[in-house]
Amino acid sequence: MKTYVSDAVIKRLPRYRRFLKSLKEQGTDKVSSKQLGEIMDVTASQIRQDLNHFGGFGQQGYGYGVEELGDRLGEILGVDKTYNVAFIGCGRLGQALMNFLIANEPNYKITALCDIRPELQGREIAGVKIDNVEDFNKKLIGGGIDIVILTIPADQVEAVRDLIEKSDVKGVWNFSMTEMVIKGKKVMNMHLSDSLQALTYYINHPD
Amino acid sequence: MKTYVSDAVIKRLPRYRRFLKSLKEQGTDKVSSKQLGEIMDVTASQIRQDLNHFGGFGQQGYGYGVEELGDRLGEILGVDKTYNVAFIGCGRLGQALMNFLIANEPNYKITALCDIRPELQGREIAGVKIDNVEDFNKKLIGGGIDIVILTIPADQVEAVRDLIEKSDVKGVWNFSMTEMVIKGKKVMNMHLSDSLQALTYYINHPD
Repeated sequence: MKTYVSDAVIKRLPRYRRFLKSLKEQGTDKVSSKQLGEIMDVTASQIRQDLNHFGGFGQQGYGYGVEELGDRLGEILGVDKTYNVAFIGCGRLGQALMNFLIANEPNYKITALCDIRPELQGREIAGVKIDNVEDFNKKLIGGGIDIVILTIPADQVEAVRDLIEKSDVKGVWNFSMTEMVIKGKKVMNMHLSDSLQALTYYINHPD
Repeated sequence: MKTYVSDAVIKRLPRYRRFLKSLKEQGTDKVSSKQLGEIMDVTASQIRQDLNHFGGFGQQGYGYGVEELGDRLGEILGVDKTYNVAFIGCGRLGQALMNFLIANEPNYKITALCDIRPELQGREIAGVKIDNVEDFNKKLIGGGIDIVILTIPADQVEAVRDLIEKSDVKGVWNFSMTEMVIKGKKVMNMHLSDSLQALTYYINHPD
């Protein structure tokens, strides 16, 4: 059975998983939706509704198994598997995100790097050489890359869209401040401005 | 009258504004909720509901004025004003975000910088000197900083919490991969992992 799960629910799953991980590290075995809701500042009913999309977890009045639920969420998200990642753009933001993956998300393996700037080509980051466009394109079309991380300026995006569409890349994590849509690919458009502007709303509307 | 507007609505406003800006650049004067919904891939009814939280825009059957609605959303968000911003952490991620502000969000003025690494102290970025902790703390407590951008590792966050709480900083844009709560301050916790993991869900659940 395939049921539709809203984007809002999917985007909340990693946060549940983070809090469960931290509870596990503190030695907690069981947690009720009420307790979890309190530490996460959401309602118990939202937690129950969100998790019900993926079948039953825990027993009424008994709570969730912290480790079991965390592991199950990891499986649902697919973060228990490993992924080959390519960066297009190896400037400061690209390098910062490489550091982030190495420190926080080791299941995402940095496999290929590309930058149009000749002075960066040939340099190694995390043991991976920065390719020129030609060599990189061959690698990408050659297959084996699951996710492309785009950290190039917005005006360079059109030049890589076709390449990504032709490849068997499955997903694009797009930091190029564009709204990218690529046929047959999942794209997560990261608009840093949006969250800064939402923060700005909140500082202008104190409780 | 002060009505409660959900986080989900607030987080969508900057996206509406981006699309309106792009319509304006294309020379479009009026847009219906149906047309806007089509280019943004959301329903017309969601657009109308979201905007109704902030009073009436446009006339039934007549559409929204593109420039007027964009400007009004800017006022609601408060992004028509300028803000003084301080960075705690001037590594790659901090520098990438400084570049981002300069290129995309010039109303957020880089005013003070701090890093605990002596080799970075005294260097200038965007015409602002990187302070040591002591000098920076004086500046922050001295007032005039609206937003702190945190780009330090998670284990350094506790050391700056008190300082921020004592200051008259209004908001924190937190990239330190922690869930920070500071009494009396608005905090936007940016968890890069959450969006990467949501993308991972989508590549594992093709349509």
